[in-house]
Amino acid sequence: MLLRLSTLFLRTLREDPADAEVASHKLLIRAGYIRRAAPGIYTWLPLGLRVLAKVEQVVREEMDAAGAQEVHFPALLPREPYEATGRWTEYGPNLFRLKDRREVDYLLAPTHEEMFTLLVKDLYSSYKELPLALYQIQTKYRDEARPRAGLIRGREFIMKDAYSFDLDDEGLEASYQRQRAAYQRIFDRLGLEYVIVAATSGAMGGSRSEEFLTPTAIGEDTFVRSPGGYAANVEAVTTVAPPALDFADAPAAHVEDTPDTPTIESLVAVANAAHPRPDRAWTAADTLKNVVLALVHPTGERELLVVGLPGDREVDLKRLEANVSPAEVETAVEADFAAHPELVKGYIGPGVLGPNLDGTAVGDEGRTAVRYLLDPRVVTGTRWITGADQPGRHVFDLVAGRDFTADGTVEAAEVRAGDEAPDGSGPLELARGIEIGHIFALGRKYAQALGLTVLDQNGKSQVVTMGSYGIGVTRVLASLAEANHDAKGLAWPAKVAPAQVHVVATGKDPAVFEAAEALAGTLDARGIEVLYDDRPKVSPGVKFADAELLGVPLVVVVGRGLADGLVEVRPRVVTADGPQSEQVPVDQAADRVAELVDGLLA
Amino acid sequence: MLLRLSTLFLRTLREDPADAEVASHKLLIRAGYIRRAAPGIYTWLPLGLRVLAKVEQVVREEMDAAGAQEVHFPALLPREPYEATGRWTEYGPNLFRLKDRREVDYLLAPTHEEMFTLLVKDLYSSYKELPLALYQIQTKYRDEARPRAGLIRGREFIMKDAYSFDLDDEGLEASYQRQRAAYQRIFDRLGLEYVIVAATSGAMGGSRSEEFLTPTAIGEDTFVRSPGGYAANVEAVTTVAPPALDFADAPAAHVEDTPDTPTIESLVAVANAAHPRPDRAWTAADTLKNVVLALVHPTGERELLVVGLPGDREVDLKRLEANVSPAEVETAVEADFAAHPELVKGYIGPGVLGPNLDGTAVGDEGRTAVRYLLDPRVVTGTRWITGADQPGRHVFDLVAGRDFTADGTVEAAEVRAGDEAPDGSGPLELARGIEIGHIFALGRKYAQALGLTVLDQNGKSQVVTMGSYGIGVTRVLASLAEANHDAKGLAWPAKVAPAQVHVVATGKDPAVFEAAEALAGTLDARGIEVLYDDRPKVSPGVKFADAELLGVPLVVVVGRGLADGLVEVRPRVVTADGPQSEQVPVDQAADRVAELVDGLLA
Repeated sequence: MLLRLSTLFLRTLREDPADAEVASHKLLIRAGYIRRAAPGIYTWLPLGLRVLAKVEQVVREEMDAAGAQEVHFPALLPREPYEATGRWTEYGPNLFRLKDRREVDYLLAPTHEEMFTLLVKDLYSSYKELPLALYQIQTKYRDEARPRAGLIRGREFIMKDAYSFDLDDEGLEASYQRQRAAYQRIFDRLGLEYVIVAATSGAMGGSRSEEFLTPTAIGEDTFVRSPGGYAANVEAVTTVAPPALDFADAPAAHVEDTPDTPTIESLVAVANAAHPRPDRAWTAADTLKNVVLALVHPTGERELLVVGLPGDREVDLKRLEANVSPAEVETAVEADFAAHPELVKGYIGPGVLGPNLDGTAVGDEGRTAVRYLLDPRVVTGTRWITGADQPGRHVFDLVAGRDFTADGTVEAAEVRAGDEAPDGSGPLELARGIEIGHIFALGRKYAQALGLTVLDQNGKSQVVTMGSYGIGVTRVLASLAEANHDAKGLAWPAKVAPAQVHVVATGKDPAVFEAAEALAGTLDARGIEVLYDDRPKVSPGVKFADAELLGVPLVVVVGRGLADGLVEVRPRVVTADGPQSEQVPVDQAADRVAELVDGLLA
Repeated sequence: MLLRLSTLFLRTLREDPADAEVASHKLLIRAGYIRRAAPGIYTWLPLGLRVLAKVEQVVREEMDAAGAQEVHFPALLPREPYEATGRWTEYGPNLFRLKDRREVDYLLAPTHEEMFTLLVKDLYSSYKELPLALYQIQTKYRDEARPRAGLIRGREFIMKDAYSFDLDDEGLEASYQRQRAAYQRIFDRLGLEYVIVAATSGAMGGSRSEEFLTPTAIGEDTFVRSPGGYAANVEAVTTVAPPALDFADAPAAHVEDTPDTPTIESLVAVANAAHPRPDRAWTAADTLKNVVLALVHPTGERELLVVGLPGDREVDLKRLEANVSPAEVETAVEADFAAHPELVKGYIGPGVLGPNLDGTAVGDEGRTAVRYLLDPRVVTGTRWITGADQPGRHVFDLVAGRDFTADGTVEAAEVRAGDEAPDGSGPLELARGIEIGHIFALGRKYAQALGLTVLDQNGKSQVVTMGSYGIGVTRVLASLAEANHDAKGLAWPAKVAPAQVHVVATGKDPAVFEAAEALAGTLDARGIEVLYDDRPKVSPGVKFADAELLGVPLVVVVGRGLADGLVEVRPRVVTADGPQSEQVPVDQAADRVAELVDGLLA
């Protein structure tokens, strides 16, 4: 393949696009790989499409090698199957819905569990036909509230989604592990660093799921790792709750004046000044903070919720959201407080929250009907300073289980570096990453809802158990750009680069252009993919800048050195200790380049 | 590639699907190539996806060879560009429209002229960058009123759409011819018979267009050809109007009683019986039939229309529709007549139709406000028997241009075999076909509407002129199935077949399965694509029937003959005079099959 820059449909840009925040987004636009068509919706230009095809091909080969068979579903789907599983509603505003000319409901599929389940139900009926794994590489739709970071969170994007079908749990486990191993091979081949972390299943449902995250500071996901090997998305981390304490000797609760203490910081200062603790100073961890939030259910219904947690921790909205899925979480607004005068902003406490301790129904004793959930650390016997439900007053020595209780617990508090791993494998460290893959042991949820059964060895009908395995193909491409760039531009791994060699002819000497043309032609004839900058009236500076921006792994400069019979081979690397430029005799250039390309592709 | 039927995700069906009318639809479903997901929306199963990929690849290679560059646009697009060109409205109910979570209007693109125009405007600015040709192979959407015939008229389908951009008319002509030649190569390579016919441009607009039709009795399009080389879709045929006649000696018009003559047939009978013509009998061609129809405009507005045409011809709704596009045509209903009592059903005539002959405004002289259009044959001086606008009465010797006129002419009458070609190249013959490609010299419509200009050689801004070129990729696949089948099943051309060889092991003898496995493996190792029927407990009859249904071009049977050291090689052909089965020594089978495959692929 030989692409000439003189005719290639490409305009590189020197300025970052106004709406771009992350490097991959900026550079993919500036280098002419993609172009924005609408918020979160992109057009693929020739070079971008070449990279995309290569990423897809790696995914396809590993899926085939793992025994999955490729099919292709429509993007436009009828409502009924999604109604049957509840997802028509659960997806809430994230689902693009539309009606056809007969006013029949359709959706643009965000994922295809329902359709794969129905297809297998349609064609298969016996355990002998299992295990089965199917996959597709297909365009998906999700009406994101905040499309961002270019391809990383788009509204139209390409996914590889695979599905496994097994008779029993052991079969599902084997299918799951086969896909997991295929994912490892895919990301290994693409040269994309990844960690596998425990995850929540969200709207997908199912018994267990793991995410593949590629570590990067711009990632939207936060994950944790322990020295002992625990790894999880923070959303999936469970808090290590301390044991319950004996409160027989605890003093009675007492309300104190704490004027002007609407924040934890001001409360701790006043408590230490006016109501000091004998043994040590009060800290934020001694306070119980009650945060008013709102759940927005897929039906649109808005429900207030109060989360009680130690005052030294913030509510992590994403963690809370993962644990109340499919509801979305919003912060409370003034109107919420106005509707609930019992919630005294800054001084809210269990006095008005939660059910009665004696199990009697909440009546007109001033308690709120708003649901109250506690952080798991607030175990029976713990003592707290917390709001007294009056302006400027707090209650001290309020004991959980003695003086108050709640409607339940919830994982909503932020996870912090140094927190204990839930499996006891040591303190956690935190990092950020992009979710590039997610694998789910779904179990029987979809098969049950849609009636996918097969006859087993005894002629008995059994509900099939399923797994679902996704890779965000376009997001993987963006992650590769993110992981392989510097200030000057992209630096693609050779296996996914739009070409392997970028030949640059500089100056005006016709002999230079002839030699460059000949070299490009020779490389092309040897099966090497070549981008040839044959533009006649473009300065060397612009050509070099474009080469660095485009990120083809080997740049061959044919220019002034040709007078001495030399061309320059410059690897496009982002690290100082990478391979260096070399001067190569022009008649050996093709051999040397071919050798380097072989090395890069090996 | 070696696919084993024991594990391939495939179930062949013996029964035709209930909703299928045409062979390609029936057989693609029965052979497990596609599966219906919703009306006009299909899922691709493994074998279908393989054929689709091969058809796409032929299209891609020829587009690349023609200098077009591949890009890929979203399917989900914002309303604005389509609003700017008027197509948001013009597409009427054929467009899938939706709103995102912010209530912003989107559409699922039926074609991408607007977006390509904007992309080129975005990146290019000089005549030096032209000519340019871009294309994509992409999923399109069209909310067809009557999805039918499986992939032939679907609502989600795959198109190759290409667009050319030129500075001037000569450039457009060259780009158009380059695409036209590429289309010829594509259909030649696919072995798909085609004719190129003049066509109407419909909602696309533009100065000129041609369709590629593949002749087949089940085609939705009717086209004509003349001995002299004229070829056109009937929708694009223009009527050869006779010269105007001198009516100086024509008798005055006279109204006659013609009881019970609501039809042309009954009218001709009564006219000949009660009002005979001296020189010859009256025929239907002497009558002027006035047909009431309704145009449904894209806005939803319904407008009545009366078409006057010789009584020996029917109105061809598709021809009329092509000539009133983007309006759709419906027949009139009782309510229409009730609303217009001046239109006396069965006896409508120019007495109440059309403008006044003297050019004065139509007042209250009993004339209708409904638009009246005439067939081009109704020229000045022609004499007609036509309705007298009273039950049971007709007017005779009514002379066009003397006694009545109309609001214009329209091409609405059916084209018949034997009609003269408009270019004088002889009598037309009619045939049916499927539209597999359509190429448009669009001109400046889209560039003008969206502001795509470049600076010319003199630094002056010029509006770019464009062409648009479509191939229905999924429809081409269906057309190949239609053209290559018999009662037993499909018979793919080797270049698009899901595999080249179908190895069938019959019986229960392990030696047979070992030999078949070895042969399949050898063929696979030689780069031949093999489908291997290794199912252990399936009868030879079922296996042979499946092979004939699936349509792989070479079937190799390893069975009883193996005892004599022989296997059978059966070409899957639909004609009796095709190549015959042969017995081949098993140790020469791979060589012989490879030789035959080479021949089929050559």
